[in-house]
Amino acid sequence: MSAVPVSVDATVLTLKQMFGERCSTAEAVRGHHSKGESWHTPGLPDAVVFPETTEEVAEIVRLCARNGTPMIPFGTGTSLEGHVVALKGGISIDMSRMNRVLEVNAEDLDCTVEPGVTRKQLNAFLRDTGLFFPIDPGADASIGGMTATRASGTNAVRYGTMRENVLALTVVMPDGRVIRTSRRSRKSAAGYDLTRLFVGSEGTLGIITAVTLRLYGVPEAMSSAVCSFTDLAGAVRTTIETIQAGIPIARIELLDDVQMDACNRYSGLSYPVQPTLFLEFHGTEAGVREQAEMVAAIAAENGGGDFGWTGKTEERAKLWQARHDAAYAALALRKGEAVDPGLWATDVCVPISRLTECILETKVDLDSSFLIAPIVGHVGDGNFHLAFILDRTRPEELAEAERLNERLVMRALAMGGTCTGEHGIGYGKAKFLQAEHGEAVSVMRTIKQALDPAGLMNPGKMFKD
Amino acid sequence: MSAVPVSVDATVLTLKQMFGERCSTAEAVRGHHSKGESWHTPGLPDAVVFPETTEEVAEIVRLCARNGTPMIPFGTGTSLEGHVVALKGGISIDMSRMNRVLEVNAEDLDCTVEPGVTRKQLNAFLRDTGLFFPIDPGADASIGGMTATRASGTNAVRYGTMRENVLALTVVMPDGRVIRTSRRSRKSAAGYDLTRLFVGSEGTLGIITAVTLRLYGVPEAMSSAVCSFTDLAGAVRTTIETIQAGIPIARIELLDDVQMDACNRYSGLSYPVQPTLFLEFHGTEAGVREQAEMVAAIAAENGGGDFGWTGKTEERAKLWQARHDAAYAALALRKGEAVDPGLWATDVCVPISRLTECILETKVDLDSSFLIAPIVGHVGDGNFHLAFILDRTRPEELAEAERLNERLVMRALAMGGTCTGEHGIGYGKAKFLQAEHGEAVSVMRTIKQALDPAGLMNPGKMFKD
Repeated sequence: MSAVPVSVDATVLTLKQMFGERCSTAEAVRGHHSKGESWHTPGLPDAVVFPETTEEVAEIVRLCARNGTPMIPFGTGTSLEGHVVALKGGISIDMSRMNRVLEVNAEDLDCTVEPGVTRKQLNAFLRDTGLFFPIDPGADASIGGMTATRASGTNAVRYGTMRENVLALTVVMPDGRVIRTSRRSRKSAAGYDLTRLFVGSEGTLGIITAVTLRLYGVPEAMSSAVCSFTDLAGAVRTTIETIQAGIPIARIELLDDVQMDACNRYSGLSYPVQPTLFLEFHGTEAGVREQAEMVAAIAAENGGGDFGWTGKTEERAKLWQARHDAAYAALALRKGEAVDPGLWATDVCVPISRLTECILETKVDLDSSFLIAPIVGHVGDGNFHLAFILDRTRPEELAEAERLNERLVMRALAMGGTCTGEHGIGYGKAKFLQAEHGEAVSVMRTIKQALDPAGLMNPGKMFKD
Repeated sequence: MSAVPVSVDATVLTLKQMFGERCSTAEAVRGHHSKGESWHTPGLPDAVVFPETTEEVAEIVRLCARNGTPMIPFGTGTSLEGHVVALKGGISIDMSRMNRVLEVNAEDLDCTVEPGVTRKQLNAFLRDTGLFFPIDPGADASIGGMTATRASGTNAVRYGTMRENVLALTVVMPDGRVIRTSRRSRKSAAGYDLTRLFVGSEGTLGIITAVTLRLYGVPEAMSSAVCSFTDLAGAVRTTIETIQAGIPIARIELLDDVQMDACNRYSGLSYPVQPTLFLEFHGTEAGVREQAEMVAAIAAENGGGDFGWTGKTEERAKLWQARHDAAYAALALRKGEAVDPGLWATDVCVPISRLTECILETKVDLDSSFLIAPIVGHVGDGNFHLAFILDRTRPEELAEAERLNERLVMRALAMGGTCTGEHGIGYGKAKFLQAEHGEAVSVMRTIKQALDPAGLMNPGKMFKD
């Protein structure tokens, strides 16, 4: 198992022979593959290779394994915790050419796609089938990346995360073996749940080359609403009571006053600059009406205003695009002012009974800081985000973000929560893994060591060196 | 790691010193712990120990690890694939004294229980909270056993299986370390999904000593119905169309004519001896009515008769108890006739588009066999069961069951399904794991080897030696 490492140049040379122009060492290409969308220090890969089949991925992996070359899988580069940074150089394996929808089994409500298919591409493909795939992180991320980071988004409160919606995977193991983790049946009690082991493994255990997903019928009726609140606590309480009442709400998203201001400017909206819930209801016509009435009653008791309805498809799309663009809207707040504006997006998730407390304490922290950081969240899951908008030329801003981020994470952990609800660990949060999981981290490390003894799969991620 | 095995007698002696009467070598106790509820050849443990705390379990595990003694966790002994059989002797660790509900977080819709708590005990405990736990295998199994076998049941079509409903676990690892696999938050992207790795691991990777579960609010309205069909295909088609229409049905259970006859006799019912669906709807009053109307319309088009409604709580309870007792009812069919009547319950799960074909081909097999085996199934998930009723004194009956079982499994696998939807592998289905998962089994073995290098945790289960 322990290959004698040869120079990465030898790997690159062989890859160029094997893949021709599909192996690039151009500065611009390497630069594009050196970072995600957040503040983390970039790291250049030695080369970027663009495989088109599982077998090609297996060939790349076997070569790298033989030569002791690090491998970093790359989707769309929208990672927020530095997952794709080539911390130790090596080969960035860009999956964007593996972007075919391999099969749609409409009767079984499932499909199998290559990892480079993006969530919007998949839903465009599905448009005529009456089906859709609900998981929607802010960016138009790739299904492979979403699987690897256990992504979720605005619909998770109703439809679950990638954890619940991946049925099976094809994975190239660190030694080049190709496995299929499960079958298409809805459930199985046969063997260890390798599917879930790879969902959220962030490229540290193998490279995902096909993903079988659950799909859902487009609901008969869908209706979205916007509701402003006199205070943040009222908006959060409305969320908590909605969840506790078992109302099957499809989306319930919190945006604080700072974020609403940013969204109004960036997305051309004109909502009150107040804590706000974006809501969506899915079901039959009667079911949607009934759910909306129940939530409206809860909101009214918690200082919420009237629901502003957006029934039309285009209006709904505009609303949710604004929500998905929240991070970009936040970034735009400092355009012109900051020399090198950058985003430090962080997220935590807590049991919903602690959500109000967690958000309000965080808001106190922010109010007393010189940094801007809108709060936005998938609050139905107990999950919320801060987006620090930094001037990357000013180290004191990075230091302040780090301080606030650490306080946020420790607060969430103390409340029985997690250091990340959906962004993942990458290398940005590796230092918190131990605080969250304690001794269990040693079990994770044992699994990593067993499956990737040479430590070549996305090195430096997930675990602190 | 590689302990020099000492005689199991030394382990038993030490356990007796440590646990006094809570360590038993009585023949009757060992016999009770030598088998589950199915046909598998029993295997006696050398002793049975009854721990009361996680720390006691850890002490037992450390002792066994030091002495090279096999360990077999034991819940209620209702396993159907020989999971609890002490194939290589050793210590049966009976979790029944760890049966406390540790906490209920009603606001967060979760609870944490010790593994010996049974599903009925938990729901009785929850009665006054307005919450319930939906997963319901036929037997009143323990939550620990249900977790270890990735159990499901009649509600899984709506609420998911143990895979979706376990939030976190406390596990004693094979070396005695105690880990907590996750936090109480609804979602997390922090680290490998150890929770799901242990769900379904069948005691081969560690011993579960606490389980954090999702709970659900008792629906405002619940209504059950029974619908007889002119043929099996019509009942299955009704199920498929209900699922494809996205109707959030809570339960949709198929019983064939043979099973209906058995249930009528065993549970004092008087339904027509025809293929039948047992249905249940959960929601608001209006929602339940709407769902029921939609399913009734689908059933009518597929040869279904009128819905027989059971709205009252006691009637509903009687109906579902009859369903849960299906296996015992089947067994009773041969009482008196067979010398030593025994049950061989098997199950498969297929993509729902293949369900009709899979059930009808299986029915042809059964019609041409001399064995009786009712068909009953959680058909909304594509999951169904055969229960061979055997005379264990007649080897030709075991051989015929084995032949039919193998044909069933291979049929399901050929259709993209799994060799077990919910009973698990144990040692009864270990021979099918390779056929189902291929190369992925080698990855499972690597994980087993890494976490339990001495192979002491429930040896002989999951993997074929």
